[in-house]
Amino acid sequence: MSQTTPAAVPPAAGLTSAGLNDSFAALLTSGRAASLALASAPTEVKNRALRGIAVALRENVPQILAANALDLAAGAENGLSAGLLDRLSLDEARIRSLADAVDEIEALTDPVGQVVRGSSLPNGVKISQVRVPFGVVGVIYEARPNVTVDIAALALKSGNAAVLRGGSAAENSNRILVALIQDALVAAGLPGESVQTIDPFGRAGATALMQARGQVDVLIPRGSAGLIQAVVTESTVPVIETGAGVVHIFLDASANEQWSADIVHNAKVQRPSVCNAVETVLVHEDAADRVLPAVLAKLAGAGVTIHGDAAVRALYPAAIPATDEDWATEYMSLDLSVAVVPDLDAAIAHIRRYSTGHTESIITNDVVNAERFLGEVDSAAVMVNASTRFTDGGEFGFGAEVGISTQKLHARGPMGLPELTSTKWIVRGTGQIRH
Amino acid sequence: MSQTTPAAVPPAAGLTSAGLNDSFAALLTSGRAASLALASAPTEVKNRALRGIAVALRENVPQILAANALDLAAGAENGLSAGLLDRLSLDEARIRSLADAVDEIEALTDPVGQVVRGSSLPNGVKISQVRVPFGVVGVIYEARPNVTVDIAALALKSGNAAVLRGGSAAENSNRILVALIQDALVAAGLPGESVQTIDPFGRAGATALMQARGQVDVLIPRGSAGLIQAVVTESTVPVIETGAGVVHIFLDASANEQWSADIVHNAKVQRPSVCNAVETVLVHEDAADRVLPAVLAKLAGAGVTIHGDAAVRALYPAAIPATDEDWATEYMSLDLSVAVVPDLDAAIAHIRRYSTGHTESIITNDVVNAERFLGEVDSAAVMVNASTRFTDGGEFGFGAEVGISTQKLHARGPMGLPELTSTKWIVRGTGQIRH
Repeated sequence: MSQTTPAAVPPAAGLTSAGLNDSFAALLTSGRAASLALASAPTEVKNRALRGIAVALRENVPQILAANALDLAAGAENGLSAGLLDRLSLDEARIRSLADAVDEIEALTDPVGQVVRGSSLPNGVKISQVRVPFGVVGVIYEARPNVTVDIAALALKSGNAAVLRGGSAAENSNRILVALIQDALVAAGLPGESVQTIDPFGRAGATALMQARGQVDVLIPRGSAGLIQAVVTESTVPVIETGAGVVHIFLDASANEQWSADIVHNAKVQRPSVCNAVETVLVHEDAADRVLPAVLAKLAGAGVTIHGDAAVRALYPAAIPATDEDWATEYMSLDLSVAVVPDLDAAIAHIRRYSTGHTESIITNDVVNAERFLGEVDSAAVMVNASTRFTDGGEFGFGAEVGISTQKLHARGPMGLPELTSTKWIVRGTGQIRH
Repeated sequence: MSQTTPAAVPPAAGLTSAGLNDSFAALLTSGRAASLALASAPTEVKNRALRGIAVALRENVPQILAANALDLAAGAENGLSAGLLDRLSLDEARIRSLADAVDEIEALTDPVGQVVRGSSLPNGVKISQVRVPFGVVGVIYEARPNVTVDIAALALKSGNAAVLRGGSAAENSNRILVALIQDALVAAGLPGESVQTIDPFGRAGATALMQARGQVDVLIPRGSAGLIQAVVTESTVPVIETGAGVVHIFLDASANEQWSADIVHNAKVQRPSVCNAVETVLVHEDAADRVLPAVLAKLAGAGVTIHGDAAVRALYPAAIPATDEDWATEYMSLDLSVAVVPDLDAAIAHIRRYSTGHTESIITNDVVNAERFLGEVDSAAVMVNASTRFTDGGEFGFGAEVGISTQKLHARGPMGLPELTSTKWIVRGTGQIRH
């Protein structure tokens, strides 16, 4: 077609979509370019950017809260649940604790370049396995602006570019957070495209991210079971599945009464909307009369609704009947399923059936039962006499966390800096060939 | 419906499919049950089974060769390529070396229970990250009966049950190998269902395996690029991508002539049908006149066809013109693409464009260039002055390999025993709650 021929057909709807595709592709390309710069950036440069992010968070509290207020108002109007509104909500203390987490990440050892293992082969060839960044990390989450900061800081420290889909519910909060992060990156001499949001692309952007195999090296969904399932099913990019937690505590026959009451209360009440909160308590029948009254009284004082089986309801008439569905439910609210079981085997069988493989804890003074529970329960974290709320990157000393992996590939449990790296084999020879 | 009412409708085609589905589901269920037994099996019991497998291989060479001959005859009739026929083919030496690999795996340290890291938290809670088996490992491969033995032995040692889809081309070979392995398992007191083949289910079985999320913990495809791509696209089970290798060697300006000739010859000729064989040689223009004649002469002596760019053809008229497609081709045959490039940057750019991220090697005497190549080439194995044929679990001292991962998640490069494990966090407290 010669240049003088006018276009017969005017730009149609398809062009908008093509334009969207073009700018999405350009975003991924700039993310890849940024990842190459980050991969070879010295630790001191990455740390300078992290310090800049922490300072910017502390200096812009009012602006961040104003943006967050817009999201909260829209969320309330759209009927978001109390749990979602809690996760969406920022206050000055939460922003300061986000900045503190960034400082903690700055202080951690840079994982890039760490030698995992190595050896000299019999022929003199030297091999070593070294940590390298993934490249570009995609994260899809919803209504959690704190994730924006945590992921950006962890990705930056581990030399990865991040492409974030934070969802429409937190769009205003995430926009200002990403802008502050990008300013700090540029001020430190790193590409601003090291951290990008695809929120302006809407749902189409999330879909395109899931299909960006080869351009995005790993995709991490954080959020509801439905969100995670959708990503797992639709994504051709390798996925690390996180989060959904139908978490159990088993009160064994020998359970300490005080520990039981304190740990169950802490695991349910301290922050009910998060994935390491307990959802089901199982009680050995020999401990029910002794331990359950104190446990349930302490929960009642905090306004917890008990969904009990018949044995529980007999002990505690305020309980409502637990349905079959309740045992598989992640309430994320002040609700708790409680059942009496005949023994440890029944508890393990119940957990095998209903657990999402996140965290389970046994309260016991019996060494054999403790070891059996640790060995036979197949979850990312298995505990004895501790609150399930400890399954957390910050608590584990990782500074923050990318999420809590509930799959078995690559990472399991809280993911910190090493979990955001891959490895590469470095092989040094002097002319050796294989015989 | 009362028992005296005769069925109005006779069993139809649907029943066959349902029957197939039922027996496939039963196979997966028995695999899961076997995995629980394996997860807690003492190392000495697993080693007993491994010794039994090695003995059975050595004692049944004629029977294995007879089964393999059936597959080879069918393969020749069906027009399998020379490369595929080579990978399909067993001989006494290969069977003995398979048995030796099983012995080597028996001698390796059991990864299950190894503590990866751990610490005491400030509140006294003790955390440790411990290696555990995946559970059930699925493997889809084609025309490689040696994989059946390697995978079975590695899965067994690492406490995993294996579900194998070896493909119709190797069906007779795999049937006898799995039968020998199952006998050895049972003789050692382990479930025979620890290693199962789904070949009788045909393609429908492969499809069902890819959809068995929750029943199969990880799926490893080994074979052609097409097979791997199909598994990556269709599977909802987490996948470790392996194998396809468009492998490069770069002969730098300072490349040693003898090393260049020996290493390129070894990397192309020793076993052209495998993934760590070189497919493209790039030569610095300052080294072309000095190094290329010896390299090409040695290859010519082995019958290698050179696909050259214009500069190569000027030096070596026997070369045929390289097409655009050639640079992206994994020949798996005595064909080699060769190009002259102006400098290291051009070599790295070429590799970034065409490499599948398997293995690349630089032949150089320049420290700066060596370090740049190792740092900037993003492949599972990057080498200096060594044959690409060294990217191999056996060569790396892993006993054997599950495959060579070309993805970045979980495992990268040759996968041995640790790569067949996940981890679990063990948390031990004395009543601690989170503040």
